[in-house]
Amino acid sequence: MLEIGGEALVLTHDMMVEGVHWLPGQDMADVAWKLVAVNLSDLAAKGAEPVGVLLGFMLDEDDERFLAGLEEVLAAYGVPLLGGDTVSGGAPRALGLTAIGRATHRPVPSRAGAREGDALWITGPVGAAMIGLEALRNGQQGDSIAYRRPRPLLGEGRALAPFVTAMMDVSDGVLLDAARLARASGVTIDLATGQVPIAVPEGRRGDALRWGDDYQLLFTLPEGTSPPVPAHRIGRVLRPDETPLLLDGVPPRQDDRLGYSHGA
Amino acid sequence: MLEIGGEALVLTHDMMVEGVHWLPGQDMADVAWKLVAVNLSDLAAKGAEPVGVLLGFMLDEDDERFLAGLEEVLAAYGVPLLGGDTVSGGAPRALGLTAIGRATHRPVPSRAGAREGDALWITGPVGAAMIGLEALRNGQQGDSIAYRRPRPLLGEGRALAPFVTAMMDVSDGVLLDAARLARASGVTIDLATGQVPIAVPEGRRGDALRWGDDYQLLFTLPEGTSPPVPAHRIGRVLRPDETPLLLDGVPPRQDDRLGYSHGA
Repeated sequence: MLEIGGEALVLTHDMMVEGVHWLPGQDMADVAWKLVAVNLSDLAAKGAEPVGVLLGFMLDEDDERFLAGLEEVLAAYGVPLLGGDTVSGGAPRALGLTAIGRATHRPVPSRAGAREGDALWITGPVGAAMIGLEALRNGQQGDSIAYRRPRPLLGEGRALAPFVTAMMDVSDGVLLDAARLARASGVTIDLATGQVPIAVPEGRRGDALRWGDDYQLLFTLPEGTSPPVPAHRIGRVLRPDETPLLLDGVPPRQDDRLGYSHGA
Repeated sequence: MLEIGGEALVLTHDMMVEGVHWLPGQDMADVAWKLVAVNLSDLAAKGAEPVGVLLGFMLDEDDERFLAGLEEVLAAYGVPLLGGDTVSGGAPRALGLTAIGRATHRPVPSRAGAREGDALWITGPVGAAMIGLEALRNGQQGDSIAYRRPRPLLGEGRALAPFVTAMMDVSDGVLLDAARLARASGVTIDLATGQVPIAVPEGRRGDALRWGDDYQLLFTLPEGTSPPVPAHRIGRVLRPDETPLLLDGVPPRQDDRLGYSHGA
């Protein structure tokens, strides 16, 4: 966040690495889409309107596909490419993107504002990216769209910004991200695992709650406030307890990693 | 460049890759310094004042040295780290940095404004980074400072911004960058090779003029205007001719690469 000329700028930078964030051999058009989409999702969680992106790009043989996907995603969300850098290198390739947004509401939502008595909400189901990745590994391109082409919820984020006490996007799994929101806010969240909407069969609920890449918005509202966009109530905010997260009233097992921790 | 809230923001993103932009095994504190310095140098060339940076960082074993260097360079130039992303990966490592600056003068200088009749200037000698890299390869840490810790000329850039018709920083060699400035401006530049100050023995003048990483500022001024900071006059701007660059009045040989082309 940067205050400049009376505006609040929201800045985000995400990096993707071959073999970590995408499968070797994956269509680079999808990689370009995702690189932009995950950054725009960070802006969505701040209720910010994107004003441009900067790209750091390691050149390779499939650059045309990457540029095609980049053009597609920037056109889809009306975002200009403001600049960047191209470099040569080798495998694994790394790509970086900076997105710049303009806050549409003050205070700008953060993950640190949840208060005792708030309710916890999510915009939609989790698990779609998980089965999408499985489909992609099995060569079923068509069913993998949720993994390959996530949609940043920019409109939803802007609509929610004036109402939420805290908000973030779910990149690493709803349980892990709820725990992070609770820790940042200095509260404990009791999450009702059965109430989280899932895009997978019930038997895989546990996996879906621990899998990332869905980019739903996770947010808290004061009790009694209804969200201005479709959303599902999945928990409540309590005073700080021993652990930041309770699952159906009980602390998670110590060996439960809750989700996917990037780079750690 | 981004107009926001009545301010002109200057945004720059540079990426560095192990083995391409730094030697494997090099002190990561120096790599951090350089990553920030080259981006601040881009801001300097726009006469912009830095307001913050975002870092994309691939984790490894020597992260403490990197963070130490990062802290040092950010403190040296009074620039805050606004955010970023850390990811796991493997060799070769890639690092990206976005720098955000606030323009101090409008119009913001670009490389496209040189006009027939202008004079071409440079702030200081070239070649220091070249001998610095050679010293580093020979294990002489002390003599390699120009290569390891370049200084972005932020004060000089701000002082020059109101006067120049075009400006850029010399990252890839003074000849190559002068040709780029000429091409962007739609003019031809006649560069007097003997007038370029060099930090090396005369016998290596040709190399020094084709070597990058010195981060001097290259700029054009209307004939008769004196630069407000120490600088050296090294050429003049002519009407567009067959080639964008003349060396002492003569087009360069076709096989003369003029400098270092990143990733191309």
